[in-house]
Amino acid sequence: MKQLTLKQLNDADKAGFIAGVGDIFEHSPWVAEAVATQRPFASLAALYDAMKSAVRNASQEQRMALIKAHPDLAGKAARAGTLTADSTAEQASAGLDRLTDEEFKHFHLLNDHYRAKFGIPFIVSVRRHTKDSILHQFEIRLQHDAATEHDTALGEIFRIVALRLDQRMDAPDRLRVHGRLSTHVLDTHAGRPASGVGIELFEVTKSGQSALVGRSITNADGRTDKPLIGDRPIPIGQYELWFEIGPYFARSKLALPDPAFLDTVPLRFSVADAEGHYHVPLLVTPWSYSTYRGS
Amino acid sequence: MKQLTLKQLNDADKAGFIAGVGDIFEHSPWVAEAVATQRPFASLAALYDAMKSAVRNASQEQRMALIKAHPDLAGKAARAGTLTADSTAEQASAGLDRLTDEEFKHFHLLNDHYRAKFGIPFIVSVRRHTKDSILHQFEIRLQHDAATEHDTALGEIFRIVALRLDQRMDAPDRLRVHGRLSTHVLDTHAGRPASGVGIELFEVTKSGQSALVGRSITNADGRTDKPLIGDRPIPIGQYELWFEIGPYFARSKLALPDPAFLDTVPLRFSVADAEGHYHVPLLVTPWSYSTYRGS
Amino acid sequence: MKQLTLKQLNDADKAGFIAGVGDIFEHSPWVAEAVATQRPFASLAALYDAMKSAVRNASQEQRMALIKAHPDLAGKAARAGTLTADSTAEQASAGLDRLTDEEFKHFHLLNDHYRAKFGIPFIVSVRRHTKDSILHQFEIRLQHDAATEHDTALGEIFRIVALRLDQRMDAPDRLRVHGRLSTHVLDTHAGRPASGVGIELFEVTKSGQSALVGRSITNADGRTDKPLIGDRPIPIGQYELWFEIGPYFARSKLALPDPAFLDTVPLRFSVADAEGHYHVPLLVTPWSYSTYRGS
Amino acid sequence: MKQLTLKQLNDADKAGFIAGVGDIFEHSPWVAEAVATQRPFASLAALYDAMKSAVRNASQEQRMALIKAHPDLAGKAARAGTLTADSTAEQASAGLDRLTDEEFKHFHLLNDHYRAKFGIPFIVSVRRHTKDSILHQFEIRLQHDAATEHDTALGEIFRIVALRLDQRMDAPDRLRVHGRLSTHVLDTHAGRPASGVGIELFEVTKSGQSALVGRSITNADGRTDKPLIGDRPIPIGQYELWFEIGPYFARSKLALPDPAFLDTVPLRFSVADAEGHYHVPLLVTPWSYSTYRGS
Repeated sequence: MKQLTLKQLNDADKAGFIAGVGDIFEHSPWVAEAVATQRPFASLAALYDAMKSAVRNASQEQRMALIKAHPDLAGKAARAGTLTADSTAEQASAGLDRLTDEEFKHFHLLNDHYRAKFGIPFIVSVRRHTKDSILHQFEIRLQHDAATEHDTALGEIFRIVALRLDQRMDAPDRLRVHGRLSTHVLDTHAGRPASGVGIELFEVTKSGQSALVGRSITNADGRTDKPLIGDRPIPIGQYELWFEIGPYFARSKLALPDPAFLDTVPLRFSVADAEGHYHVPLLVTPWSYSTYRGS
Repeated sequence: MKQLTLKQLNDADKAGFIAGVGDIFEHSPWVAEAVATQRPFASLAALYDAMKSAVRNASQEQRMALIKAHPDLAGKAARAGTLTADSTAEQASAGLDRLTDEEFKHFHLLNDHYRAKFGIPFIVSVRRHTKDSILHQFEIRLQHDAATEHDTALGEIFRIVALRLDQRMDAPDRLRVHGRLSTHVLDTHAGRPASGVGIELFEVTKSGQSALVGRSITNADGRTDKPLIGDRPIPIGQYELWFEIGPYFARSKLALPDPAFLDTVPLRFSVADAEGHYHVPLLVTPWSYSTYRGS
Repeated sequence: MKQLTLKQLNDADKAGFIAGVGDIFEHSPWVAEAVATQRPFASLAALYDAMKSAVRNASQEQRMALIKAHPDLAGKAARAGTLTADSTAEQASAGLDRLTDEEFKHFHLLNDHYRAKFGIPFIVSVRRHTKDSILHQFEIRLQHDAATEHDTALGEIFRIVALRLDQRMDAPDRLRVHGRLSTHVLDTHAGRPASGVGIELFEVTKSGQSALVGRSITNADGRTDKPLIGDRPIPIGQYELWFEIGPYFARSKLALPDPAFLDTVPLRFSVADAEGHYHVPLLVTPWSYSTYRGS
Repeated sequence: MKQLTLKQLNDADKAGFIAGVGDIFEHSPWVAEAVATQRPFASLAALYDAMKSAVRNASQEQRMALIKAHPDLAGKAARAGTLTADSTAEQASAGLDRLTDEEFKHFHLLNDHYRAKFGIPFIVSVRRHTKDSILHQFEIRLQHDAATEHDTALGEIFRIVALRLDQRMDAPDRLRVHGRLSTHVLDTHAGRPASGVGIELFEVTKSGQSALVGRSITNADGRTDKPLIGDRPIPIGQYELWFEIGPYFARSKLALPDPAFLDTVPLRFSVADAEGHYHVPLLVTPWSYSTYRGS
């Protein structure tokens, strides 16, 4: 449910405009203020671009203040419940609100290390990541120099803002912030789409733990009615798709051994491009299967 | 290490012959005695066939005594350590010596149920099975009638005996008691066998737990130097092969995303024919893979 | 270009209606006359169903006259140029206007044989067939009895009529008379659609001759902008798709041998369902390829 | 049938040795004379290496004379029947004895062009080539400088000699002059090797003409009893393998459409490495197939 239309924003007085999007940049209503007179915006993209320009044209001090206005990832503010609503939801999306004590200590250590080196909090658009990829980002970015990280922080803030605008605003256009993960199952034994195949999508951590992301079932065309992930970025990380192929072929009354050669077929793959299109199909007979990254 | 040659058995006096193979049938040296005068045996298969004939031609009482001479699977005798050496090793091969208390109770219950229905112990050649498939055998065989189960018990005894002979005897011929599980990895990106790919084989229980069966690495021909399983029956059950494809392509210095689309590739399949040949290859590029049951 | 809208037909006087569709049934305007008073028709399907009912409810003599009003396939009337315009175009669609003298004699013989056995001309909706499949239909149908063939002839007449209506009429609905043959090319070496791949579609006769049906080239999505066949039935027969894979990978500057392992990749398949959807993709690396009937 | 054993060569007097292998280098018995005193040769490879060294250590004039002792490919000597027996057989192996007048003129022109540029005949080991690849070699080598071509000519002479030794000599070792082209057919619909599948191998010229190279049929293991090509180099060129898949699945009594989706499956590929191992399998269901270069 979008709260706000672009038209409402364009028609509001300045106070109403700031009430609507003043909190889009974390604790920094000055960005909205800076663009209020540029209304009306013809599109969401125009509003977004104007806000980015306002930040780029602000003083170095303002930009630094904007960066420093962001909370630590999985930090004490999160535990204390003093984050903004947006930040709270974002951190929860990657499971940062459900860390074990050990994980919490590990994030705490990395945050401190990062702040000590660069003088700013570690900022990342967590909706684009899994816990594993956030930790991988820490590793990579701790090797950078300060100038690179200040730029990177700003880039991540813009990604965060784009996703907040996408969630809040009803506009004629869309920002390109969604990825798509889809599949289909083709029964190359019978030469037709495989319908009624149960599918589960898991996130698989590097340590081997699996968390269910969603369930679906193939329709008459061998596809799922909706993409497995389609209305958000695909969190960068490793996944496993499970296909219930055993029950599917059992329903076909084929003469197969007991146990059948294939029962649950797992496909394991990683997503590196959160806004990319990943089509990961399964071509399957009772004795063989193949998959590929399609589009 | 084979303990005994066929020639030694043929050359021994009757006592020596019975010392050599009198215990091949559980607590039933009379089978060996019955065939001692038929020596010399030209092959292991001839000895085996003679022993089976002796059992089939024995009285109904003798055959029933032979069946009843077998211990319960995972029974109290096992816990008490009073099994024959062969039975102990066999039950350990399927992990029946490492049951949890709950599993022990479950086997106990099934054993009692089976004995109550058919008047004989539940006999199965456990070297051909995983724990899951033994439980599945219980389910299926409890639905049979007594005549069928007396036949089945005898058939399983013959399988147990064939495996004992195979392990003990050095002969010019081999009984057909071994299966073979093998793989190879073909890099269809470069058009050549993939060498240096780490491989792990796991047994996967129905409840989803994995137990490592073995590790290997592909050679210059993309194969493992030895079959993954080759000198024994393949325990009937579900397996997963893991291929370390990510490190393999990383060594090729290809420009791939981080994380790469494929890292560990799992192939999950089941074995229904313990003496069958299962060749489960992986054809792989950084963006696709396929597998099939080959031969 | 459709000549006529359904509205025009509905609004016309009776003479105008018959002028519009009186020739839809070969030399049999009485069918149109019989349904003229049922206007207006809400859809093309309603008009088509009404006409079929009129034929089914006519007398046996009328139906036989309708059947006998059809010309021989590749017959003397065709050579003499005395066919209706529709029949001429239809016979040309399967190449029946370009027969060798030997083929002409063969059709003549089969026509005579069929007429002698069943007392009617051999009728088939040639737009749904290649020359080979028409000959195969002769073989099969010559084995039937007369009642079956009279029914079959009527069924084929209805198919002919449906295609004539589809070509002539502009209506809100469509009769289901079109098939679809499509492809796409996925480069599983690079993990993306293969664009710029030249494609040729050939009809391949049983005697091994090939006739070019069409050419296309893959777009950025690895597909052709239009289906290879999409606005008509797919003639039942054998086809070969040729993919210019050698030039595609050569443009990628890969280090490949000379000559490369793959240059032109031919996929050969047959179509049995003229109104079916045949998706025949190519998944390809410089060293491997696969295809399947998709949907 | 090998004419000569290495032992015979080693045991012969000098005249006998030269009688045996004096003609191995075209019209140049001096090479054999130069190595006669180095006998006995422990292996065919030792004899071959000694002969190559003799050529490399000879004077520049001798080497040039050796090169010039070779006939033109498809030249007037061939038409006049005045070639050595070896050269006659070699040129026939690539079909150079069956050129059309137009092809003969084209070779004549290329030969003259080559001789004019480099002062030597165009020498190539024709057993390693098809007509197309010989023409392609002309194109490539005409762009070289004279020094490169003198070296290349010598390299080709050594290849010619290796093949002549391989054909004539019976020795404990083999020179590495053979390639291998093999296939197997796996029925992934039934999960087993496809036996009884008819296979034809064609050479396909760039102009699209096909010449049958050989026929075979798959055995119980889905393979051919012998490699399709195994006792000679694989002529560099383009091939098509035809698999009679339609009849195979028809024998399985599957319910398939008429015509079946797959009948003859053609796999088209090229060989660039005449001494390489090309395994080109077919994995097939009634609705899909794949192939790859295996090993």
